[in-house]
Amino acid sequence: MDSLLSMDQLSRQEIEALLKHAQEMEHGHYDREAARRKILIPLFFEPSTRTRLSFETAMLRLGGQVLHVPHLNDLAVSKGESFQDTIRVVSGFGDLMVLRHADDAAVYLAEKYSDAPIINGGNGCDEHPTQTLLDLYTIYKEKKQIDGLNIALVGDLKHARTMHSLIKGVSHYRITLFLISPHELRAPRPLLELLRERNVHVIEGRSLEQVIWEVDVIYTVMLQHHRIKDQGTLERLRQEYYRITPELLRSGKQNVSILHPLVRMNEVAVEVDALPNAAYFRQAKNGVFVRMALLYRMLNSTLFAKNF
Amino acid sequence: MDSLLSMDQLSRQEIEALLKHAQEMEHGHYDREAARRKILIPLFFEPSTRTRLSFETAMLRLGGQVLHVPHLNDLAVSKGESFQDTIRVVSGFGDLMVLRHADDAAVYLAEKYSDAPIINGGNGCDEHPTQTLLDLYTIYKEKKQIDGLNIALVGDLKHARTMHSLIKGVSHYRITLFLISPHELRAPRPLLELLRERNVHVIEGRSLEQVIWEVDVIYTVMLQHHRIKDQGTLERLRQEYYRITPELLRSGKQNVSILHPLVRMNEVAVEVDALPNAAYFRQAKNGVFVRMALLYRMLNSTLFAKNF
Amino acid sequence: MDSLLSMDQLSRQEIEALLKHAQEMEHGHYDREAARRKILIPLFFEPSTRTRLSFETAMLRLGGQVLHVPHLNDLAVSKGESFQDTIRVVSGFGDLMVLRHADDAAVYLAEKYSDAPIINGGNGCDEHPTQTLLDLYTIYKEKKQIDGLNIALVGDLKHARTMHSLIKGVSHYRITLFLISPHELRAPRPLLELLRERNVHVIEGRSLEQVIWEVDVIYTVMLQHHRIKDQGTLERLRQEYYRITPELLRSGKQNVSILHPLVRMNEVAVEVDALPNAAYFRQAKNGVFVRMALLYRMLNSTLFAKNF
Repeated sequence: MDSLLSMDQLSRQEIEALLKHAQEMEHGHYDREAARRKILIPLFFEPSTRTRLSFETAMLRLGGQVLHVPHLNDLAVSKGESFQDTIRVVSGFGDLMVLRHADDAAVYLAEKYSDAPIINGGNGCDEHPTQTLLDLYTIYKEKKQIDGLNIALVGDLKHARTMHSLIKGVSHYRITLFLISPHELRAPRPLLELLRERNVHVIEGRSLEQVIWEVDVIYTVMLQHHRIKDQGTLERLRQEYYRITPELLRSGKQNVSILHPLVRMNEVAVEVDALPNAAYFRQAKNGVFVRMALLYRMLNSTLFAKNF
Repeated sequence: MDSLLSMDQLSRQEIEALLKHAQEMEHGHYDREAARRKILIPLFFEPSTRTRLSFETAMLRLGGQVLHVPHLNDLAVSKGESFQDTIRVVSGFGDLMVLRHADDAAVYLAEKYSDAPIINGGNGCDEHPTQTLLDLYTIYKEKKQIDGLNIALVGDLKHARTMHSLIKGVSHYRITLFLISPHELRAPRPLLELLRERNVHVIEGRSLEQVIWEVDVIYTVMLQHHRIKDQGTLERLRQEYYRITPELLRSGKQNVSILHPLVRMNEVAVEVDALPNAAYFRQAKNGVFVRMALLYRMLNSTLFAKNF
Repeated sequence: MDSLLSMDQLSRQEIEALLKHAQEMEHGHYDREAARRKILIPLFFEPSTRTRLSFETAMLRLGGQVLHVPHLNDLAVSKGESFQDTIRVVSGFGDLMVLRHADDAAVYLAEKYSDAPIINGGNGCDEHPTQTLLDLYTIYKEKKQIDGLNIALVGDLKHARTMHSLIKGVSHYRITLFLISPHELRAPRPLLELLRERNVHVIEGRSLEQVIWEVDVIYTVMLQHHRIKDQGTLERLRQEYYRITPELLRSGKQNVSILHPLVRMNEVAVEVDALPNAAYFRQAKNGVFVRMALLYRMLNSTLFAKNF
């Protein structure tokens, strides 16, 4: 398979080759015509701003082009076309597809019918692998390393696909991983098992306050409220959800890095934005370099090459 | 007129010059910078996926660019601007316009006010000439010829614009044409008269089963349900509408080709997709090559040239 | 500040350098690769056709690219993201942003958070500076000069941002300015004071008929009905609003020029379109050349250079 649907597909070696390539992109060491006359197909069945635009910018910076695929409502799908037929036809109009869909299984189904390789741009509650690649790139840039760090993932570990892919991503590293969430929002069991298999040192808990003095990186995310049906539970989780403030950070390491895939609601107070610890806007920009590297490698079929 | 609004404008010689050109496009024999710095304006007053994206891909493959014209609701039209004013202003922003509109007369009205040549991307119940060009190209590719074939057009011959343009298109060839439809959905009389004038051998009927053993090409289309007001009639037509299945095909020629302009509902069973007879996904891809040839020729004002 | 938010920022010298540059663009004297690999970000929180497409065409003609930013409803904003966060992230994906927003203050707020320079593409009731630049370019082209003209601004001088920017723009010239409006729709006091300070000869009145014989240029605009809350007032203003007809023009100078930023409702009768006086469609086209010059100068940081 030459599509990228899950972090499961990437070894540590492949991840690091890609991040090294992203760094070259950031330093401007790349062929500005690398994607000349190549066409990216962004197919988003859920709204997106930063993922979509970041891929688009990446493709344009490489000299490629991007189709203007209308949003779900306007797609032929609304005439009643099957998802499979849409994938079959639309995938013939370009060289590479980025697909986002509310249904976890959709990207795997699409991969069977697509003429073009597919990048998973977020599938339901499952994964968002390119977000993880830029998250890892950001940690590298902020901390110069990943091995040896204490990393806290904070919040809705159950539903957030960014968290799921990230857990898979950091599982390749020798880190201590703090999984901080309300009990109802614990990380899915298969991910906990994966971490155990790979001998990651995991500490689960509900309180960020209790461990904040220990961590080098805090990665938080919105409460995925649309995934929580029961209004009472939702309301309670909203009340007790995490909020990173300058006051809280005073208990932490001076150089703790705060990451967030954005959109943020109030998981991170705007007062944090001015602190050097706030890495989340830098993180959003890093997405362009990482996606440039990914597009480059997929268009040249070297994503899964062993020797970069 | 240097716009392409109807198949009426194209002689057999012009059609074939264009299809020959499309073949060169498909074989990669073309100037990748042919449309450099040229701008296509897609103006769609009805939703579209494949026509719009196929034109867009074609323009990008030729090195051109495509404006992002918002959909109807977002257009100035929604502020109450007249159609004429919109055409006048928007046509000034590019070099070539593809226009789709629910009203049959709109493309002809637009042509009077436009600064840029117009390609009819589908006008109401009337025509869809570029679909026909790719249909003819597909028949050539699948069958190596058009003259001498037995071609069945099946379904809503009354309302489907793809059928109307295709009837005009095949009227230039020495074929036997089976027009298979419920009585209420017969092809419009002027088209039947055109076929008679051009001495096309026409056989009209309601049953595909009765003639399937004779035909080389089956071209079917969705029931144009939004054109049928009466609910009772619609329900009955839905019940008795055509459905091509592997079982039905067993009564036909072994190498019969199935074409469909897509979107399909259930006119063609998904079980047919795996058969070599299923030409409809190849057909969708052919649209890119045909539209590349068309764009090239219109941008170079050679569409209606006599000697290609 | 290297953004263009208001006509207040531009001196007469700077305006004229830009218009001279626009003329070179119109004559085709420009580097077709001037914006190569540069990316424009159109961020429209209100609908737009001509401003958006005209900027897009301008960017493409210079060899640049344009992001496909979805409309308001689809933006992350709809997930509850703050305007500031949206600006921060999206501005990192390109080199220059065109921003339109219903709130007068939004462009100024955005400028604080944006990584990319911003062009005001219309902010509430306040300003629309690039419209004014193309208006001035059109007056130059139609009249060969601006000094010495009698110019009538007609209609909703209170709410129309095009009028506000234009008043600032023409305030640099030695003209006689007729401000023709119903009493409720008079130009805002600060603009009247600016005109007084700059010694512009201003004549205010309600009747276009009374002064039409004197004027060289008539610039009119839609009643900004969405800004008028009271239905009775709105109805009355609609009744008595201005309408330019061939009959009315017979009382005017033979070569009076009619300008309108469009969209028009019925401020200018369609019967005027065929007259040589109707400059408004030429005006819309001029927008591309003026915006090419503006984009060129902003991408090369020479917008506010003193010596062009």
